[in-house]
Amino acid sequence: MKIAVAGAGAMGGRFGYALHQAGYDITFIDRWESHVRTIRAQGFRIHINGEDVVAHIPIFYPEELVQSGATFDVVILLTKSSQLDSMLRAIAPIVTRQDTYSLCLLNGIGHEKVIEQHIPRSNILLGNILWTAALVGAGHIKLENSGAVDLCELHPNGKATAQKMVEILEHAGLNATYSTDVYYTIYRKALLNCIMNTLCTILECNMHTTGTSEHLRPIMMGIIGEFAAVAAAEGVRFDSKQAIEGMELSSRLDGIGVHFPSTYQDLIVHNRLTEIDCLNGYIMERGHHHGIATPCCSMITQLIRCKEDILNAK
Amino acid sequence: MKIAVAGAGAMGGRFGYALHQAGYDITFIDRWESHVRTIRAQGFRIHINGEDVVAHIPIFYPEELVQSGATFDVVILLTKSSQLDSMLRAIAPIVTRQDTYSLCLLNGIGHEKVIEQHIPRSNILLGNILWTAALVGAGHIKLENSGAVDLCELHPNGKATAQKMVEILEHAGLNATYSTDVYYTIYRKALLNCIMNTLCTILECNMHTTGTSEHLRPIMMGIIGEFAAVAAAEGVRFDSKQAIEGMELSSRLDGIGVHFPSTYQDLIVHNRLTEIDCLNGYIMERGHHHGIATPCCSMITQLIRCKEDILNAK
Repeated sequence: MKIAVAGAGAMGGRFGYALHQAGYDITFIDRWESHVRTIRAQGFRIHINGEDVVAHIPIFYPEELVQSGATFDVVILLTKSSQLDSMLRAIAPIVTRQDTYSLCLLNGIGHEKVIEQHIPRSNILLGNILWTAALVGAGHIKLENSGAVDLCELHPNGKATAQKMVEILEHAGLNATYSTDVYYTIYRKALLNCIMNTLCTILECNMHTTGTSEHLRPIMMGIIGEFAAVAAAEGVRFDSKQAIEGMELSSRLDGIGVHFPSTYQDLIVHNRLTEIDCLNGYIMERGHHHGIATPCCSMITQLIRCKEDILNAK
Repeated sequence: MKIAVAGAGAMGGRFGYALHQAGYDITFIDRWESHVRTIRAQGFRIHINGEDVVAHIPIFYPEELVQSGATFDVVILLTKSSQLDSMLRAIAPIVTRQDTYSLCLLNGIGHEKVIEQHIPRSNILLGNILWTAALVGAGHIKLENSGAVDLCELHPNGKATAQKMVEILEHAGLNATYSTDVYYTIYRKALLNCIMNTLCTILECNMHTTGTSEHLRPIMMGIIGEFAAVAAAEGVRFDSKQAIEGMELSSRLDGIGVHFPSTYQDLIVHNRLTEIDCLNGYIMERGHHHGIATPCCSMITQLIRCKEDILNAK
């Protein structure tokens, strides 16, 4: 199975590296020049569980790869959400082939709506990652903790490939599960992101520290209420009780609590625009669509956008 | 007229200094030991409009002053809101005299409810300050910009004293007005505080910078809507259009826009608890009382409280 990873950032790097280590034929696709240049010149530097390794994995700009005529069985999509559409346009000749499947593993909700504008539903797989990963700088990522991933097909046509991808990811040590209810896990993770990623970014601290404040709870309950209402309107299963339990686990110091989530890394560390539009901003937008009030998600969305403006994030 | 200023912080210092300069008999009351010690030893160091002056004005701990048997015509209350109740308890023998009036000029809404637990309504004056002031350190404040103050009595008994105090404050250059609608100006200023003070504290920037984000507007409109509903339920005049105009003025670079508001100074500069309970927290509490939903004010209140927790503010 020939696999491309479109978006070779922290999480793309984690998945590409794990698959490469397990012996699969991996190609990275990315647009960030100093990242591509560094990886080509010095290899991909990966600090994994306290150890430094250098992986030599091919990396291409989208246009280069398209020109080369390369084809893939599966393209794993792991760009930033704001770059998804332009990446799909750039690699259209690759991802629109009838025998190529695209596996969307981006953070946040609603990406399949963007992907369906480029690729037929029959060739889309959708999954959800519970691993963490951090970008240190160009060509350099840091990987800690353990995690999991689950995925499924959007259309029966993709079932065999989805199941094959689960086997491959599992073989690469990525703790993969085939799920018939992937929206449930996507919403559940997105809820964590909508609360923890945004609050850690607004308050500039890690998940454990955010979790220590007793005043987190009313904020959390407000967001969960809006999430549950929008999920119901969207026909997605959502379990508030499990969501609360997940939230409590997330701030444990012996777990991912020490982690500074991706939204924090984007805005505070790397001065980049966040994925708020696919998190609280998505709930706000879908709430508006369904006539559901989402004042908590709206407030969080606008605060993150204010902070992006003030920090002049790009 | 013999005047005490209870709470000799930045704003108490501004008012006490202006009155002292105008020749009035001023006494400061404060509990902050290094502040009292510094002022007694070296005078009150005041950086005013680019110039450094040192004022020699008597300052006492509440208990000292009570023991001395001193009496005052007016006690101007300018403590932090969290210290108001304990200050009133400590100076009860002074403020509960039949011929002593207390003029409340604290930031925020609802202080008269605290004061009425100690002092009859007939002896309470209530006002609203539009000056700014910053505490640099013990015995040292910084004063910039111009401002205004308006006030009135809560009960006809206090009218003559209220009018006299307006004359005195006006004479001291504090730009004072007698107002029959002081709640209107209190709410209008509190709205500015509920938006600008809190957002500058959450985003850690001045009012001008906060005002530059186009995403401020939906946050502002959410808070204004809740404010208008609670003001109506409380029987207080509130004009949303004027409120919006005031907000726009507040972020001008040639005005108070360069100012880091008091909530920012409290929490970010001095690591102290904020007055959120008398701002968005008050609107939240009154909203709850009247059955009015206040999700925006609640979210802002909880975020400030989270930040207080995380910064371990005292």
